[in-house]
Parts: sequence; C-alpha cells; structure tokens
Amino acid sequence: MQFHLNGFRTGDPSIQVAADRQVLPANGSGIEDVDVLIIGCGPAGLTLAAQLAVFSDIRTMIVDQKEGPLRLGQADGIACRTMEMFQAFGFAEKVEKEAYWVNETTFWKPDPKRPEHIARSGRIQDTEDGLSEFPHVILNQARVHDFYLETMRNSPTRLEPTYRRQLLDLKIDESAMDYSVIARLSRLGDTQSDAVETIRARYVVGCDGARSAVRHSIGRSLKGDSANQAWGVMDVLAVSDFPDIRFKAAIHSANEGSVLIIPREGGYLVRLYIELDKLNENERVASRNITAEHLIAAAQRILRPYTLDVKEIAWWSVYEIGQRLCDRFDDVIEGSDKPPRVFIAGDACHTHSPKAGQGMNVSMQDSFNLGWKLASVIRGLADERILATYSQERQAVAKELIDFDREFAKMFSARPKTREDDEEGIEPAEFQRYFVKQGRFTAGTATCYRQSLLTGSTEHQSLAAGFCVGTRFHSAPVIRYADAKTVELGHTVEADGRFRLFAFEGTGEPGAIRRLCDYLADDPGSPILRFTPKGADIDSVIDLRAIFQSGHRDLERNKLHPLLLPRKGRYGLIDHEKVFCPDLKAGPDIFDLRAIDRHRGCLIVVRPDQYVAQVIPLDAYDTLAAYFDEFLVQRPHRQAIV
Amino acid sequence: MQFHLNGFRTGDPSIQVAADRQVLPANGSGIEDVDVLIIGCGPAGLTLAAQLAVFSDIRTMIVDQKEGPLRLGQADGIACRTMEMFQAFGFAEKVEKEAYWVNETTFWKPDPKRPEHIARSGRIQDTEDGLSEFPHVILNQARVHDFYLETMRNSPTRLEPTYRRQLLDLKIDESAMDYSVIARLSRLGDTQSDAVETIRARYVVGCDGARSAVRHSIGRSLKGDSANQAWGVMDVLAVSDFPDIRFKAAIHSANEGSVLIIPREGGYLVRLYIELDKLNENERVASRNITAEHLIAAAQRILRPYTLDVKEIAWWSVYEIGQRLCDRFDDVIEGSDKPPRVFIAGDACHTHSPKAGQGMNVSMQDSFNLGWKLASVIRGLADERILATYSQERQAVAKELIDFDREFAKMFSARPKTREDDEEGIEPAEFQRYFVKQGRFTAGTATCYRQSLLTGSTEHQSLAAGFCVGTRFHSAPVIRYADAKTVELGHTVEADGRFRLFAFEGTGEPGAIRRLCDYLADDPGSPILRFTPKGADIDSVIDLRAIFQSGHRDLERNKLHPLLLPRKGRYGLIDHEKVFCPDLKAGPDIFDLRAIDRHRGCLIVVRPDQYVAQVIPLDAYDTLAAYFDEFLVQRPHRQAIV
Ligand SMILES: Cc1cc2nc3c(=O)[nH]c(=O)nc-3n(C[C@H](O)[C@H](O)[C@H](O)COP(=O)(O)OP(=O)(O)OC[C@H]3O[C@@H](n4cnc5c(N)ncnc54)[C@H](O)[C@@H]3O)c2cc1C
Ligand SMILES: Cc1cc2nc3c(=O)[nH]c(=O)nc-3n(C[C@H](O)[C@H](O)[C@H](O)COP(=O)(O)OP(=O)(O)OC[C@H]3O[C@@H](n4cnc5c(N)ncnc54)[C@H](O)[C@@H]3O)c2cc1C
Repeated sequence: MQFHLNGFRTGDPSIQVAADRQVLPANGSGIEDVDVLIIGCGPAGLTLAAQLAVFSDIRTMIVDQKEGPLRLGQADGIACRTMEMFQAFGFAEKVEKEAYWVNETTFWKPDPKRPEHIARSGRIQDTEDGLSEFPHVILNQARVHDFYLETMRNSPTRLEPTYRRQLLDLKIDESAMDYSVIARLSRLGDTQSDAVETIRARYVVGCDGARSAVRHSIGRSLKGDSANQAWGVMDVLAVSDFPDIRFKAAIHSANEGSVLIIPREGGYLVRLYIELDKLNENERVASRNITAEHLIAAAQRILRPYTLDVKEIAWWSVYEIGQRLCDRFDDVIEGSDKPPRVFIAGDACHTHSPKAGQGMNVSMQDSFNLGWKLASVIRGLADERILATYSQERQAVAKELIDFDREFAKMFSARPKTREDDEEGIEPAEFQRYFVKQGRFTAGTATCYRQSLLTGSTEHQSLAAGFCVGTRFHSAPVIRYADAKTVELGHTVEADGRFRLFAFEGTGEPGAIRRLCDYLADDPGSPILRFTPKGADIDSVIDLRAIFQSGHRDLERNKLHPLLLPRKGRYGLIDHEKVFCPDLKAGPDIFDLRAIDRHRGCLIVVRPDQYVAQVIPLDAYDTLAAYFDEFLVQRPHRQAIV
Repeated sequence: MQFHLNGFRTGDPSIQVAADRQVLPANGSGIEDVDVLIIGCGPAGLTLAAQLAVFSDIRTMIVDQKEGPLRLGQADGIACRTMEMFQAFGFAEKVEKEAYWVNETTFWKPDPKRPEHIARSGRIQDTEDGLSEFPHVILNQARVHDFYLETMRNSPTRLEPTYRRQLLDLKIDESAMDYSVIARLSRLGDTQSDAVETIRARYVVGCDGARSAVRHSIGRSLKGDSANQAWGVMDVLAVSDFPDIRFKAAIHSANEGSVLIIPREGGYLVRLYIELDKLNENERVASRNITAEHLIAAAQRILRPYTLDVKEIAWWSVYEIGQRLCDRFDDVIEGSDKPPRVFIAGDACHTHSPKAGQGMNVSMQDSFNLGWKLASVIRGLADERILATYSQERQAVAKELIDFDREFAKMFSARPKTREDDEEGIEPAEFQRYFVKQGRFTAGTATCYRQSLLTGSTEHQSLAAGFCVGTRFHSAPVIRYADAKTVELGHTVEADGRFRLFAFEGTGEPGAIRRLCDYLADDPGSPILRFTPKGADIDSVIDLRAIFQSGHRDLERNKLHPLLLPRKGRYGLIDHEKVFCPDLKAGPDIFDLRAIDRHRGCLIVVRPDQYVAQVIPLDAYDTLAAYFDEFLVQRPHRQAIV
C-alpha cells in the first residue's frame, strides 16, 4: 500500500481523497448524462462499478431494481483467480480472514458392503500446489458485494448504487454524437406520476442477470439446453455426525441421489446442494412446490447412515440446471465495424449449474475484463477499437465454461456405477479424476486469451515459460529492493487501469535494463513519453518494474536508472517500489519458478486486468512500441523525463 | 473466525451482537457507578478498554482530556509481541497491511577514509528467524488507536471514549462496600457552573501518561535519572539520495551527532530521530527554542555526503531522555494485604527514551496483563487476590526495560570510537552486536513472569522445551483436523478472558488425552465442571484443545472424545475447531519445533493474556486442579457434560 504521496493525511489510508467534483448525488436524482450506466448490482455490476469508481474523470451510475444490498444467499464459491482480482481491488485479505478455505475435497459412494450406506471413496487436495498464492475459499455472495460497496465508497468518486430503479428499455439515438444510449428507468415504489426517468449514457452495461432486460433490448438471447434436472440448495446450521461435514464433499448414494457439501464461513454454517427428481419435458421446477422440508428429508436419505439435524435454515432455493449462452456480448451487428455501445456481462450472457462454483467468478472476470477498456476509452487514453475485444475474449471463455459445466453436471447427476456392465453409471474414481483434471479450470487460472489487438504472439514465450502469453500474470514472491520486504510481484498489478512492464534481467546482456530505461525515458518513440498525459505521474499509464538476478544486498542504488526511482506527485517524491530481487535465502527464486531465461532476460507486458499481453526480448523496443501504438492514443508530445 | 453460532446473521461478522443493556451512553452523562474507570485514551487505556468491552456484564468508562482521538505523531514501533496481541484482538492483519515492515537494520559510521562523510558499516536482519509468526512493523500510533476504537465500537458493549474529561483527583471511600473509588472529572469546555462530575468506580486505572494524575493521587512518583540529552523527532516527506532511506538505519557521524532513520507506512514518509546538544544540569529542552528547521539542518549535517530535501513536515517534537520508574503500579501500601483498587499503567509508571521503540509496546502489554484479571474478578470468576500480580509482574518488566534503555541510549548517544585509546567512544561493531543481542528483548518476546499464584514451576519444562513457563505461548503452525486448514495454534488464544489447555499427545501414553477428557468432563474435581457457570458454553472459562501426532488424514473422528467436539450455543451446534495435527507434508512439525516430548506428551495451560502458566504431564490432574483452585471461584456444581 502506498499513500501520503501528495502530503500526509490522517486517518484510514484506504479512504481516497474525494474528487473535487462529486460525480453523482447518491440518489441519482437530476442526473441525465453519464459515461457508463451499469444495470444490476450483482457481482458483475459491482466489479465494474468498483473499477470505474477509481477514476475521478468518469461519471458512472449503477442501478438495481432491488431495495438495497443483497443480504444473503446465492453463490459462495470464490476461485483462486478471483482472489487475485480481489487483491487488485485491495480486499483479498478481508475475504481470506472471513471465508472458509477449501483445502481438501472428499468423495463418497455407496459402501460396497452395504450399498444403502455411503462410504468415503477418496480424498484430494483441492488446489494443486503453486497454482496461486491465494486459496480457494467460500463466502456468502452478499459479503463479496459488501466489500465492493466499501471499495466504491472509499474511492475518489464515492460511488454508491441507486436502488429501486428498474431498467425498462434502451434505445440508441443514432443522431447523437455522444451519450447516444437512452435508458428508461422506472422508479420503483415511487407514487409520483413521472416515475420514469431517462438517462443518456455513452455506454450501458447490462449486468442484470439471467433475465437481462439489456440483453433483450439489444435483441440477443441465451441459447442452449433446456433444463430437466431439479436441484435444491440450502444454507443451514445443523448437527451432524457425518465425518466430513467441514470438508467440501461430493456424495453419491446408491438410490437416493447426490449431495454436494460446501462448508461455509464462521465454522458452523454449511451449504448443501441436493439432487432432486428429474423434471418432465417442459416442466418447471416451481410447479413441484418443493419445500425446505423436502430438501432436508432428501439430504437425510442420501447421507445415511449419518444423521443431519437441521437447527436453522438461513437460506434455501430450488432451481433447474441448464447451460445457456449468448453468441455475442455486445450490441455490434455481425460484420459491422461500429464500436459497441451496449454490453452484457455475467449471468446476462451465460448461465449454467452452480455446483462447479463458476457463476459468480466468471461474471466478475467478465466485467473486470471490460472495466479497464471502458475506462481507457472514456479517459481518452485508448482507441474505441479495444471495446470489441471484450465480447471476443469473454464469449470464448463462457463457451468453454458451458461445455465444461455440461459434462460436470452430467457426471454429478449420474448414478454411481454398480455393476461392470452398467453403461450409464459413473465410476466414483472417474468422477474424482475428472475433478482433479479440471482443477485449473475451476480455479479460474486456465483462461487464455487468443492473439489479438491486446494479446501478442507466443514467438518469444521461451524467454519466460512460466508467464504464458494470454493467461493471467502468475505471481511469485520477490524481495523489494528498497526495504528488503518479501512481496508478491503480481500484487503490484492493482485495479487502477495501468499497464505494467516487468523487465527481468538477463546476465548475458549486461546493461540491457539500463538501455531499456534510456529508451523509455528519452527516445521520441517511447510509449511512456508518447502516451502519458502531461502533468501525470510518469508511471500513470505504463508502469515499469525491474527484477534483477542478484541478491538485494548486492545491488547498488546508484547503479539504478532514474526511471526506476521515479519522482512523483506534487513534491516529486521518489517512488522506491519499482525494483525487486529474487529471494535467494528462503526461496523460491522467481527466475527458476517462472522459468525466465537467465541469460537473455525478458520484458513482460501485463494488461490492467492482470493478463500477460507480451513476452519479448529486453531490446524489442519496436515490438513494444508497435503494441501500444495499435490502441493507445498519442498525447501532445511529452519531454524526456530524466 | 467463528460466527453464526447462535443463528445466522447478515453483514459484517466482526460486529458483535449488541448487549441488551447499552452499558454507557456515549457522552457518559448521568453515569455514576462503573466497574472500571479508565483515565486516558493512549495505547495503555485503549488496550484495557478493548479488553473490557468484550464483556457485556462489565460497565466500563474511558475518558480523556483531549477533544477526540489522536490524529498523528508520537510512537510508531510495533514489536512482534505486540502484533501477537493485536491478533488476539482481531486486527493484526490490518496493521500488517498498512504498516512498514522492518526487515533489515543498517548501521552507518564515519567513513574511515573521509571521516566527515558517513559510510555503511553493517547490515543485519532485524528479527531472528522463527522469533514470532509476525513481523516487526512501524505504524502511526494514531492508527493503532483507530483499530482499538473500532474493536470497541464493534464489541457487544459498543464502548466509546468520553472526551474532554480531565481527572482532577481520586479518593477512596473506605466506608463504601463497593464502588469505593471516587473520581472527580472536570468537563472541559463546559461553561456551566457544575462543570465537575463525580464517578464512583470499583476500580480506576490510570493510563494517563507521564504526568499521571492518578499516580499523583495514590502518592506514587517516577524515580530515576534526570534528563540531560535532548533529542528531536520528525515525520517528513523528503527526497534523499541516502541509499538506506527505506531501511531502519542507525547513523553515527564523526562530529555532528547521530540520527536514527525509521521508514514509515505508505512508502514515502520517514521518521528521523536526531541527536541534539547536551543540556546543562537542570536545563529543560523547551528553553532552547528548537525549531523544525534546526532539526532538518542537524539531520542534513549528519547525513553528509547524502542530501535530504524535506518537502513536508507531518509532525515533529523535541524531548529529553530520562529513565524513570515507579516502584509499584497500584495503590496497595507495602505490607498490606488489601487488594488494590487503583492501578497505573504505561507511561504513568515508566518513561524512557523512544529509540528502542518500547514505550507504546510495553504500555499496551501492561494493560493487557491487567485487563483479564480485572474482568475475571468483576465477573465473579476469580478471586481478588490475582489483582496484586499485576504490579508484581509488570513492575519487574518495566525495571528490565529501564535498565536496558539506559544502556541502549548511552550507546546510541556515544561518539563513535575514532582512535584505539578513545575510552568514551563506542566501536560501531559493538553497538551492532548489542543491538542483535537485545533483539528478543526489543521484540517483546523475552518477557518471563516469575513463579506466582498465576505462573507455575518449571519442574516439567522438559516436556515442552519450546514453551517456556512464564513466557508468551510461542505460536506454531498446525493443521486443523476438521477442515485441513493450516492455522497458527497460538491464534486460538483470543482476547476473550479464557484460559486455554493445550493437550499434546504422547505416543508412549496411549489414551492419555481421552482419560484427560474423561476427567475434565466427568470428575467432580474437574476445573471445567467446577468453574464454568451454569448455562455458559463448556469452553467459556477453560478452553481445551488437543494436538495429535498423526497426520490429519489418519485420525478418525469417532475416536475423538466428545469434549473435543463440544456442543455449544442455543442450538447445541458442534464446535469443530478443537483438534489439530502437525503439518507432516509442508512442515514444520510442531512437536519438533517446540521440542514436545513425543513419548509422554504434555498439557500446557495458557493464561488469557497468552502467557504459559503451566507445563505438566497429561495425567497431572491434581496439579491442574490445584492451579485453578488457587484463584478461580467455585460455581454451584455443574453436571458432567457428556
Ligand atoms: C436466487 C439465486 C440463487 C443462486 N444460487 C446460486 C448458488 O447456489 N450457487 C452459485 O454458484 N450460484 C448461484 N446463483 C448464481 C450466482 O448468484 C450468479 O452466477 C451471479 O450472481 C451472477 O452475477 P451477475 O452479476 O451476473 O448477476 P446477478 O447476481 O443475478 O445480478 C443481477 C442484478 O441485476 C438486477 N436486475 C435485473 N434486472 C434488472 C432490471 N431490469 N433493472 C434493474 N436491475 C435489474 C437484479 O436485481 C440483480 O441484483 C444464484 C443466483 C440467483 C439469482
Ligand atoms: C508528545 C509525545 C511524543 C512522543 N513521541 C514518541 C516517539 O517519538 N517515539 C516513541 O516511541 N514514543 C513516543 N512517545 C511515547 C509514546 O507515545 C508513549 O510511550 C505511549 O503513548 C504510552 O502510552 P500510554 O497509554 O501509557 O500514555 P499516553 O499515550 O501518554 O496517553 C495518556 C493519555 O491520558 C490523557 N490524560 C493525561 N492526563 C489526564 C487527565 N488528568 N485526565 C484525563 N486524561 C488525561 C492524555 O490526554 C493521553 O491521551 C511520545 C509521547 C508523547 C506524549
């Protein structure tokens, strides 16, 4: 955490200085034009709002038809990759403290000796070693919302949602130069006659869930399988002698169906996903009048011989499983090259079963992908063309998710194989193997964006085999040179819309980092000079960090290029947090861990959403410049800085 | 973190359910009788208030003459031991996130070749490996206050300080049965005529700093050396080419004096302690009219050849060094066996130089020592006799501190030795050696309480050489059996006034833990049965935890004694967090790390303030019972519980 740059301030440093212009009154009244209108305060909408709230020059409005924040229920699984993103927003450690940590998963099947009883068939470590510096955790979705709301409240724009606003419809005013999306919102609970208000926005993002009105208004729809499997879910306080009641446990009984146990935060609460009867064609689960008592009774039957004595039901729900997907996540007509004005994210564009714990996670990653792109365009840093990459990148991820979920859900609902020749049944060991194999996918770390305007080629991948182009920057511990603190290198990538350059030293190219710094600081072609607005800190668009191979005690400060000790803020104070060394004492050495070419070194470009955009040689100045040239907007020429 | 025991609650779980009876109105008006009146909202007072606030059956009032909370300045060093205590109060991770971490300390002396310039003479790791699971950190004292105030606000009693109240004097009403201390408080800034209010309290604790009115009113005084060395301190935002500006650095110049550099939170702020001129006998520093500009100029001279360009002074102060101590920390007259009614803590009973960073730390440990004792007596759990141990234990610690500080300050102020025959000068290497040697002391982990009513003998110390009787329980990582999470065993000791029993399995005594559980759960002599109030959770006075030697996958739940899966709260839910195993995969194994006798195992009794009270054999039931018998108050007999 860095603070006090522009003068000492008392109090909580996570509360940013409020922007001069209070961007929006909390009740949203009297507002007509906004840069971004977000429909829906679910995880997707709040991630986007928290991202945009950072920028005091963006007018954001976020609305929801609900009366106020979510208090309970819905999703609870938080994948490692999501924790990495929470770190960028500054609240990962709060989630770590409060959440249940999924350390191991166990598997139960019918006891071969007494098939009406279940018996443990396997136990695995949940997340493979080294997959992420963060654990896989479980926490009430409402608390995730709370952390985002707090982040927004503490941001310079003090952004608050406007509740009781229901989007009725959207129209594009083709005649308007800007603010061309016109949204009609109904003020719910308002008895006045003019209970509909009209907002003009440059961009509208529909984070309005599975029944998205935004999706509807841009003429898109979810396509896919219809559901015919009913499931129930309940969060309970219960007494049980089931030995794995505090482990994530997948339980398949012989004839009573399956249960998935998800222990919850606080040590007592537990969630159960319970398989219910197959539905008939076109039948809806609502018609079955399933009650919480049905769910409890089903769970009790499945858990035999163990008991489950439910003392309190905190929340419960029933739903049908289906896998459905939208073929595009924006309003661009196939073949048109108009930039998008309206986007959809989260459940608005993909729905699936909740048991792989993906819904909330993928929804947040959707809008984290979109947020910095919108911000860069609105702030005049980037070209509108980058907005098309949102649908390209995220639709492909959703497609993979849907395919995965179809298979996972089928496996989960299948009867355990009882006889050798049982064609439909599934061997518990097979399910377990599948589960392990998909570990990276469910952790959210398997996402890999294809080569595009924003993602380079893998031509130089061998310079850093552990930082795959297109995947998220996989953090590793390093020692910060200035104060010898062990830090995670990836945690320098905060949700602040900046690009990062990580320059790894190569011992075979002495001086290469210094020459790179010279280029970046002085050359007229330098992307830092060309794209950083006048008066802004030198690292405000592209933030350079260097990682040397020597121990931190052996590097001499006066050998560092001034660009690695940049002067910032109103006093021109030195930022001391740009230089790192491997941990040679306790290890691991990041050069080994991420297979960096020790001889040649490399330069890694990381996007504001933490994805690796480029792995290139330290002297590939032209490639570097060409990358940013493609989509960043040149500024009035800035002088060499050092 | 455990929550939802008595039913699911929405929102932030760190906000406790408010007690039925709002204990005190925030402004303190109309209050006459309180259990504890705390004078002073410094670190000592706030630690005590945060401790007492946990108990909804204690009426606490805390007052300060200030207008409101501290905003800046004063102390900033937070020792490892203090972080352990913050963990018990639930906010260590907030401090870890915000603070500067002291990883290494460097030493500078006159450059032999150019004595008017300084040169680095040494560099050491600040805290020895394994000393604590927490780092040594630096953070604005005001933020420490903020975290305590938040803890108090979130506690069941919602305790808030009453500001603008100055203690005038105290009287003991010997005729009163109870609430016998009468305090007169002046309402500052109050224009009404009756601007003095009278509070009757059972206990008054003077946490009112070096000029303590409480100390004065009980006729005690600080004794010790008068000061004749002036120092300045300033927190600045500055630009410097001094290479170690982000390291703690002790700098001795040849002729310009010394500077101690303490980097501060946020990456830019830095504190400098600057040696000023010697004072004449009986001269006060105030008379010198030292300005901030003097301090800057002195620092600049000492740092040569490096530059220091101060851009903003956040806070500065000058002071004289002295080491002064009170011979008793309560109002008991030597030889009397009356229990104390009035206590003093923190700077009210000991003052010394700030450079070893001890003042705030030792002050907080004072009142952490006192807090649980007062609470236990007021709540009727413990005998008043335990109150006398406060002065015994903490006066001895303060004495050690004063002795240490005298030596440390002398070393610090001494001129660096220039010639071999320079008798007064100090060799820089000698200072560095002293610094390393005293590392445990300054980390706060060297404190060892002598054998007493509350601290047992070292007779069985060999059963657990790594848990020394009288020292703080030195945490180590273990695996929690119920959910395979790696946790710090010491973090089970929260600031909740409870005693902990840690039963370590011995392989040579199979069944010993089960027999101990049988004894504790069923035997009429069991301290758990005898001292736990009716209706209270079984672990609410004495909390048993067991650590087995086998891997967590090899222990069978149905082999666990029910006392290790206790039923709690209004629903009788199972508490799953009592059983632990060593981490056999990643290590270290706690049995090795703390040198537990693997054959015999052992039982460790830990006090509510985290100090080891007893190390005894697993079957030493009589010793265990006798220990608690000495000071706990027997309850109406409770039935066997399982
Ligand atoms: C009842 C329910 C139970 C669920 N249970 C589980 C579960 O057990 N496990 C699991 O993994 N996942 C579960 N999910 C799914 C998970 O919550 C979603 O995947 C995740 O919340 C998706 O986030 P989102 O932001 O895309 O959409 P949502 O969280 O659905 O948020 C959409 C928001 O938009 C608002 N909105 C909708 N239409 C409008 C409109 N026209 N105008 C204004 N506001 C509007 C809604 O009020 C809502 O707040 C559940 C979802 C729901 C709704
Ligand atoms: C100005 C100053 C500068 C310091 N600088 C440093 C430093 O640079 N480095 C360092 O390590 N330590 C420093 N210290 C010391 C460090 O702050 C103390 O060791 C620590 O705060 C002790 O805590 P305490 O709670 O015992 O007392 P204090 O923090 O002194 O708190 C005492 C409180 O009692 C209140 N009070 C006093 N008398 C009355 C009364 N009659 N009625 C009501 N309220 C009363 C005061 O307003 C104050 O809030 C400094 C202290 C002071 C006062």
